[in-house]
Amino acid sequence: MLTFYDAPVSGNTYKVRLLLRQLAIPHEAVRLDIVGGEVRAKEFRKVNPFGRVPFIVEDGFALAESNAILLYLGRGSRLLPGDVRAQGLVQQWMFFEQNQVETALGLPRLWRKFGVEQDPALFEHYRPRAVAALKVLERHLAQRDWFVGDAYSVADIALFAYSQMAPDAGHDLGQFPAVSVWMDRVRAQPGWFSLE
Amino acid sequence: MLTFYDAPVSGNTYKVRLLLRQLAIPHEAVRLDIVGGEVRAKEFRKVNPFGRVPFIVEDGFALAESNAILLYLGRGSRLLPGDVRAQGLVQQWMFFEQNQVETALGLPRLWRKFGVEQDPALFEHYRPRAVAALKVLERHLAQRDWFVGDAYSVADIALFAYSQMAPDAGHDLGQFPAVSVWMDRVRAQPGWFSLE
Repeated sequence: MLTFYDAPVSGNTYKVRLLLRQLAIPHEAVRLDIVGGEVRAKEFRKVNPFGRVPFIVEDGFALAESNAILLYLGRGSRLLPGDVRAQGLVQQWMFFEQNQVETALGLPRLWRKFGVEQDPALFEHYRPRAVAALKVLERHLAQRDWFVGDAYSVADIALFAYSQMAPDAGHDLGQFPAVSVWMDRVRAQPGWFSLE
Repeated sequence: MLTFYDAPVSGNTYKVRLLLRQLAIPHEAVRLDIVGGEVRAKEFRKVNPFGRVPFIVEDGFALAESNAILLYLGRGSRLLPGDVRAQGLVQQWMFFEQNQVETALGLPRLWRKFGVEQDPALFEHYRPRAVAALKVLERHLAQRDWFVGDAYSVADIALFAYSQMAPDAGHDLGQFPAVSVWMDRVRAQPGWFSLE
């Protein structure tokens, strides 16, 4: 049996929720409260030393990190190409997402959404990083429908989760038309649902 | 033939350099100057739309992102376990590295090393993030020698690259004895060489 530790608000948990639905994987969901501190609480840390969500446990095997979970649960499915080089590209985009997209869009979105006071220097730090990352996505998507090959994959799920937050993070998606059209393409996938 | 676009200074290129040496993979290295701007230059962007290093091209197949490159080049070798769950854990630690360790230690280290003036708010932002990440590594390594299983793997290479920068980023490794001992273990691996 698969147990999925979930929480609202987070784009990282959303990725796993979407995959589980789109691949119709049976599981039990445990919903935690990030804002209220349940995720960092000692009780959860005993189960999950990372103290973060998403987190899964499958027959005693515990795995953290959203993209590692997508790759693990997606193996052998239509959402993860079997070819070694295509898998390399999927991983390339997923590492890019965690390094360049997730924090640069996710943190400013979180601060704005919940009215967290932050030094303006932090917004100024993340803003050009987010724009540079969105430009990389835009250039790629101007020439193709999906991030890897000719089909929707876990790379699209990972990149969608935080790209969709661009407006809430203060960016104008009108500047990124190919990203916008790709997002509509993702939203049209069977089983898709919105973050909130 | 494999071409490896390399650059000094970067911890991400160091990872790939180390893997290539430790697995004795034949390749041609093209060394670029990050600080002088060669990596972001138009000429390189034609080859590599990410405009970043490391970057590899193997018989026309191009791959960016250090950890994706480690996973691709490491497949089937002693540095990447073949078991699906072990691979999941390797990826878990590599995503954690790119999301929690690389920027939190890498950026402050870069700013301090090259005397880049930055708003103190940025150092204050990254400091607790780095400490939290180092604590996760410390708790894990207090109970085992390597990140995954009983052997040195690409997960150790990835995490070593930026953990070693902790002192340059202003952190006292004396607070993290298990991390320090693990680093010595990495340094004792055949073929290991220092970043600079």
